[in-house]
Amino acid sequence: MSGVFIAFEGGEGAGKSTQARLLVSHLSALGYHAVPVREPGSTELGNYLREYLVSDRPVTILAELLMFEASRAELISEQVRPHLSEGAIVVADRFAGSTIAYQGYGRGIELDQIRWLNDFATGELYPDLTILLNIDPLVGLERVNSRQLQLALPIGDTPDRFEEEILSFHDDVRRGFLKQAESDPDHWHIVDGHRSISQVSAVVRAVTEPLVMSKNMAGSVS
Amino acid sequence: MSGVFIAFEGGEGAGKSTQARLLVSHLSALGYHAVPVREPGSTELGNYLREYLVSDRPVTILAELLMFEASRAELISEQVRPHLSEGAIVVADRFAGSTIAYQGYGRGIELDQIRWLNDFATGELYPDLTILLNIDPLVGLERVNSRQLQLALPIGDTPDRFEEEILSFHDDVRRGFLKQAESDPDHWHIVDGHRSISQVSAVVRAVTEPLVMSKNMAGSVS
Repeated sequence: MSGVFIAFEGGEGAGKSTQARLLVSHLSALGYHAVPVREPGSTELGNYLREYLVSDRPVTILAELLMFEASRAELISEQVRPHLSEGAIVVADRFAGSTIAYQGYGRGIELDQIRWLNDFATGELYPDLTILLNIDPLVGLERVNSRQLQLALPIGDTPDRFEEEILSFHDDVRRGFLKQAESDPDHWHIVDGHRSISQVSAVVRAVTEPLVMSKNMAGSVS
Repeated sequence: MSGVFIAFEGGEGAGKSTQARLLVSHLSALGYHAVPVREPGSTELGNYLREYLVSDRPVTILAELLMFEASRAELISEQVRPHLSEGAIVVADRFAGSTIAYQGYGRGIELDQIRWLNDFATGELYPDLTILLNIDPLVGLERVNSRQLQLALPIGDTPDRFEEEILSFHDDVRRGFLKQAESDPDHWHIVDGHRSISQVSAVVRAVTEPLVMSKNMAGSVS
């Protein structure tokens, strides 16, 4: 794999989509081939599964987990691997870390079972760097709520079932993200998500730049 | 679990749906509460996933497997377990054995991985009896083809992606079913699927009757 795989993780309203978009724009402006993907989604199957998952249609927690993994298996096979092989920088809005945090720490499914499923779905291909936008759930959820009040809600950014869960669930999820980041500092970087968009963006550029430069990228810095 | 769980397995055109329907009618006529289920399907989520799986929309083999398992997890939790708890006889048109045969022997995914997923999705709840309708794929596929030519094709019984696979695939699948049946004779029963509907139905009644009678069923024989 000659490319670079970067993922953004964090709770609701942490700024993942915004920062992923800004990073892709920044890298593209520098002449790199940067490819944004999101989970679930970014493939025909992923979008089909997403449509159900973000609705309020019935799904048990095991089936929900298996749907996320199906979307991930498709994404890895159809998008991430081919783009990395071509030397691109793949920027993911959520990845396997979200499943550990939400389905494991949040919903209580055994972590070893989720790790098995993540390994199976990804073929053990994980991000070179995962940026955790760490934020107090109360602040994040308030951001989401105020976003919902705005008419210019971006397509696909609708509030989903997770945003309706109680706050203690989101505290568990936050703990799940922090545990992962703290136990694997070589591949995770924690950024304070309370800071402004431009402040966070500056940190993101700083921590991704060495990684992008260190790889012998197909794209060239302009 | 006070009920009885019976599954029909076999290749395309083996007669599973027909025999499952006949068995449910027979048991109902005897006064039992018999519940038909099919895979994928029989839940809102299962039907949603089925719609994609029987289409020609893109799906990789790992994602396909995970979708079947998602449908199964939902079916077990929402249909099979509750009905068995109430003492019903659940009659399944395909179950976990199909995944071993199609995704394992047919598509080449490691059997241990599929077994892990089957255990995870079912919580290790498996049929008391699985009836394998064993048929030469050439005969089965000819039945399916002649069915397609009839205008009165039952809804949901449309030819799916599997029926378009080459014959060697179906030979592998048949071998996968036979291997499972032969290695677990306490829970599998092989029936010659080349025989007439009424002949097969008579055998099915004969092999299920002792099982149904032996359990202290909620329903009573009329």
